[in-house]
Amino acid sequence: MKKIGIVGGTGYTGVELMRLLARHGGVEVVAITSRGEAGMPVDILYPNLRGALSLRFSTPDDADLTACDLVFFATPNGVAMQQAPALLAQGVKVVDLAADYRIRDLDVWSKWYGMTHASPEWVGRAAYGLPELYRDEIRSAQLVANPGCHVTAATLGLLPLMGQEWIDHGQLVVDSKSGTSGAGRKAEVPMLMAEAGESFRVYAAEGHRHQPEILQTLVAVSERPVGLTFLPHLVPMVRGIESSIYIPLRDEPPVDVQALFEDYYADEPFVDVMPPGSYPETRSVRGNNLCRVAIYRPLGGSMLVVSSVIDNLVKGAAGQAVQNMNLMLGFPEDQGLDLIGLAP
Amino acid sequence: MKKIGIVGGTGYTGVELMRLLARHGGVEVVAITSRGEAGMPVDILYPNLRGALSLRFSTPDDADLTACDLVFFATPNGVAMQQAPALLAQGVKVVDLAADYRIRDLDVWSKWYGMTHASPEWVGRAAYGLPELYRDEIRSAQLVANPGCHVTAATLGLLPLMGQEWIDHGQLVVDSKSGTSGAGRKAEVPMLMAEAGESFRVYAAEGHRHQPEILQTLVAVSERPVGLTFLPHLVPMVRGIESSIYIPLRDEPPVDVQALFEDYYADEPFVDVMPPGSYPETRSVRGNNLCRVAIYRPLGGSMLVVSSVIDNLVKGAAGQAVQNMNLMLGFPEDQGLDLIGLAP
Amino acid sequence: MKKIGIVGGTGYTGVELMRLLARHGGVEVVAITSRGEAGMPVDILYPNLRGALSLRFSTPDDADLTACDLVFFATPNGVAMQQAPALLAQGVKVVDLAADYRIRDLDVWSKWYGMTHASPEWVGRAAYGLPELYRDEIRSAQLVANPGCHVTAATLGLLPLMGQEWIDHGQLVVDSKSGTSGAGRKAEVPMLMAEAGESFRVYAAEGHRHQPEILQTLVAVSERPVGLTFLPHLVPMVRGIESSIYIPLRDEPPVDVQALFEDYYADEPFVDVMPPGSYPETRSVRGNNLCRVAIYRPLGGSMLVVSSVIDNLVKGAAGQAVQNMNLMLGFPEDQGLDLIGLAP
Amino acid sequence: MKKIGIVGGTGYTGVELMRLLARHGGVEVVAITSRGEAGMPVDILYPNLRGALSLRFSTPDDADLTACDLVFFATPNGVAMQQAPALLAQGVKVVDLAADYRIRDLDVWSKWYGMTHASPEWVGRAAYGLPELYRDEIRSAQLVANPGCHVTAATLGLLPLMGQEWIDHGQLVVDSKSGTSGAGRKAEVPMLMAEAGESFRVYAAEGHRHQPEILQTLVAVSERPVGLTFLPHLVPMVRGIESSIYIPLRDEPPVDVQALFEDYYADEPFVDVMPPGSYPETRSVRGNNLCRVAIYRPLGGSMLVVSSVIDNLVKGAAGQAVQNMNLMLGFPEDQGLDLIGLAP
Repeated sequence: MKKIGIVGGTGYTGVELMRLLARHGGVEVVAITSRGEAGMPVDILYPNLRGALSLRFSTPDDADLTACDLVFFATPNGVAMQQAPALLAQGVKVVDLAADYRIRDLDVWSKWYGMTHASPEWVGRAAYGLPELYRDEIRSAQLVANPGCHVTAATLGLLPLMGQEWIDHGQLVVDSKSGTSGAGRKAEVPMLMAEAGESFRVYAAEGHRHQPEILQTLVAVSERPVGLTFLPHLVPMVRGIESSIYIPLRDEPPVDVQALFEDYYADEPFVDVMPPGSYPETRSVRGNNLCRVAIYRPLGGSMLVVSSVIDNLVKGAAGQAVQNMNLMLGFPEDQGLDLIGLAP
Repeated sequence: MKKIGIVGGTGYTGVELMRLLARHGGVEVVAITSRGEAGMPVDILYPNLRGALSLRFSTPDDADLTACDLVFFATPNGVAMQQAPALLAQGVKVVDLAADYRIRDLDVWSKWYGMTHASPEWVGRAAYGLPELYRDEIRSAQLVANPGCHVTAATLGLLPLMGQEWIDHGQLVVDSKSGTSGAGRKAEVPMLMAEAGESFRVYAAEGHRHQPEILQTLVAVSERPVGLTFLPHLVPMVRGIESSIYIPLRDEPPVDVQALFEDYYADEPFVDVMPPGSYPETRSVRGNNLCRVAIYRPLGGSMLVVSSVIDNLVKGAAGQAVQNMNLMLGFPEDQGLDLIGLAP
Repeated sequence: MKKIGIVGGTGYTGVELMRLLARHGGVEVVAITSRGEAGMPVDILYPNLRGALSLRFSTPDDADLTACDLVFFATPNGVAMQQAPALLAQGVKVVDLAADYRIRDLDVWSKWYGMTHASPEWVGRAAYGLPELYRDEIRSAQLVANPGCHVTAATLGLLPLMGQEWIDHGQLVVDSKSGTSGAGRKAEVPMLMAEAGESFRVYAAEGHRHQPEILQTLVAVSERPVGLTFLPHLVPMVRGIESSIYIPLRDEPPVDVQALFEDYYADEPFVDVMPPGSYPETRSVRGNNLCRVAIYRPLGGSMLVVSSVIDNLVKGAAGQAVQNMNLMLGFPEDQGLDLIGLAP
Repeated sequence: MKKIGIVGGTGYTGVELMRLLARHGGVEVVAITSRGEAGMPVDILYPNLRGALSLRFSTPDDADLTACDLVFFATPNGVAMQQAPALLAQGVKVVDLAADYRIRDLDVWSKWYGMTHASPEWVGRAAYGLPELYRDEIRSAQLVANPGCHVTAATLGLLPLMGQEWIDHGQLVVDSKSGTSGAGRKAEVPMLMAEAGESFRVYAAEGHRHQPEILQTLVAVSERPVGLTFLPHLVPMVRGIESSIYIPLRDEPPVDVQALFEDYYADEPFVDVMPPGSYPETRSVRGNNLCRVAIYRPLGGSMLVVSSVIDNLVKGAAGQAVQNMNLMLGFPEDQGLDLIGLAP
């Protein structure tokens, strides 16, 4: 059994990691830290874990994270960049679910996250944790930057098209919608049910941190400049992200786009290209690690549209982190992740 | 008191008409027809009307609609085109909340609605019931075609930009989201709460009837070809539409776009251009007749974005119909419509 | 126009007061205080009020509340008891929407609210703001204690039965369910949509402050000891309370219980006794001031059951407060309150 | 691998059976019948099963159910009583998820279900599928009647108290609340999201079929007459049941009631007695087979209260059916059922 630690486990990505790891079979969570809740059994804070995980939150000082094979940082942005290097120096592997190591360009990172990076030397050494693109790097990485939630849905919906000469890379639109758990377990008025319930709205319309993160990958893959408008919305539900992606066509595609997607993802365990005419529902991936996509060409016009759905806490966070862990520790990639979405 | 009739009053636009008309003050609902529910008090079917409206559904045969000053058709598509002409011939004014008279091009209409028009002579004589654009025509019209719900949100979000040389009319995107009441009061599995609740998805992605209707107005106003991709989505809530509209810029706008919108709608009682930085919530217009819009330019890039929200059953249906009625019958335009949205 | 002040207007009862008063016609809101939001226009915090109310929050010091005819306290418990007496001394009328003056027994009050009362001399002089029971006292009162939300639903569901010899007053059960807006606009983790959404649970099961408040009225009306178990629950919705009330029968009722309720409430503008076989929906009273009740006798057994629904923010708070204001200031009791619930 | 058939698999209990059986490991679903959907792949109707189960619906005639080791009937009431006997006669084991074999008294059954029983000889031979009470009978049974959803929550919340002299068996109250999936996948107006969303109400208040089913077990266990009032409610959510159970005390309990429950369920894998002060959330059991209960004594009074939560489709239907299957086929009782509830 590999030994696993979780730093900052009181949030939603933390509990989701525990839900998945408790049934993984090849790992044991030996430490989960929280300054605020130190001493409290995790199943008091999260009763859904009762009977599945017997563990208490501990302070970072009390937890011997260096004895772990791998440590997840489920912390706010800016924590892993401070604390991960000491673990990495001792040979511990790290998956950061926050944004500290996602952006290669330190200036861009500082602009969006409002901090100077505390461990810039590790930024270039981190693998970007999108297995569909960087599986080999992840396998051999000591540090993995787990992608953002909107980012995962949008990027997987766009990857097969990147670099195709017949699309217009300059005017892409990602209209993305997220359930409220994406905002985390923070006591904030706008995320109250009385505020977010039975209503729908945009947020961060002037610019959102996930835009440069998506862009970084699209540019890397297409090897050309990319223009991307990204607009997030808040959906009155708990879990789920749907990204509707608009790709203007420069020319008639010389290939069958449906087949292009199916071929591209043929061997991927966690990307499901749905049949033509499907409407991916966020509930169909609730609780599991799948990204489901469907491709449309409305009225046969000059715009290609992709709808991509994930569970923001699974493929958009903890599930993808476990997928990365499996790669890093040599487990089968889908171990502990073969769950079926709840419907209804 | 003007006499009002409602044909087909058992659906959601019917009950919403009754809710608004019962407190209007200048009209009396004298007949509301339903073959299926004839004889039943309306407040048995809709208990929210208890105490506000004492009326029974009647068969179309029993109701003397010709004695009405104005009749609303809250019927499925294809009914008004059969039944309205007889009333119109007797001088009764008609507002059709369905799609029968919305599309001027009969071929386009037939293609989308799968029927041959039964009263094509009235199509050209109908005013299109968007008061912000056709107020004068509506005032003098005998027949008004009330716009579609997504159509109203999208069109009002785009009007001030139409014909501006600095936008690209050829690649507009309307990503629209609707609560489930937009599907009407029909017993269908996909609209069950167990299906649509706590989930999000696209629908009609290959093409939706509201696309040609939006297009017709945009072309008329901009006097040029318009390219429009329209994609509707289903939100797990009851009421509300939000349309996120993407308008590529050809050049730097020579005007302040916020001011352009504010000027355009300065005298409109039911369009509220929100201050910069606002995120219009569908709940802020729940139950009232407002359309609220906000304008963004994400990251200062080459894409203008408008978020437009309405209540699909009010400004998107019954409220706009009452606004049209007010114009047609000489009432103040906002009579009976000065309600305040519920928040929370 | 009567001049109205609101102390502590940033919460949900505050915005609901503004929604109702803005369309009342006989009053003008001249001051609304908030230390935290002083200077901010109310329609920035609550965009649903845009166009309906042009007012800024002010500090309590800047607002001349003594110039008001009536002041609402929409403050946390313990504020009105400090600040109301000075206004009352100047002849200003006061409606307290919090609990400061609801409980006559000061020891009971202190036990439940954990404070020593700051103005005990006013407790006995306050009218209890349930017009169905204390209409005359309210008309002539200078200070009115607006009832609690669960309390209103439960009490109105029980009143006609109190003192009837054929019910068992000793073993009443009120199983009450509330939407999350009942917890107010406070940033608290358990009220996040990600916590309260798509889930259902009890709360305050060991004892809730509304139990002694319901009990006080039941004892006063029945003139005998009453045994009452009260259990509140949290419903994944924004607005609405439903109380299911269980009344054991000692004997076969010598009267028709449906008729008893109908007669009792025959002249009440805001209590609607529904026909036999009805299932009151919380949505049927959403946004309006009605309490709707239905009476059952499951399987013809020895238990009477009443289902009572209100909107917790209207009849359960701001609407009832306006109803009380109407009585205190000589307006028709239903002025500004003749709204129709939204359905769907 | 044991061979499993499902009759009538298009409903919510059918898809839930497939979700659980697909990951069970010891069984293979070889046939799933549906007259209406014969020929359709199950993962077209239920995309959450894509990749997990490759099977098509077949007609009952095409499916060789007699080759199965066990067949689940996920059919409407009245089907299993017609079709199960032929399978039973051939030695096939049967679990009926409908109500056909739940009630021992045929007159009571006929009164509530409006049918004459087609195979009364099997009623007495069926084991009642509540493993916590009838584990041994189920192990050796050929036919198991899977309990109702409200029934399971209520019965498990009451069992430890049955027969205790210090409770009043004559005046029990079960106030039960269910998500809308409990109504099944039937196209009915009251279950539309536009009807059931953002609202709360009672249903079947005059009497519900689950009352006699709960009563049958309580009487059998307590060996005395029992008085039970049962009132179901509809919650605006998809999954979950919470039953609040009121038990009047005749005397001061001579035992610690919390300990009584903990002891009673000490060895039960699927009943979780929560610590004092807990508020069981339906989400904590979403997707898994647990029943979680908490015990209260509000204000230390003469009423004991139990809150019991289950997932209506799992412990309330398909999960309990698989638990019964495990017992009948000799698998470990929790095989395939060790899932962790989703939170948030």
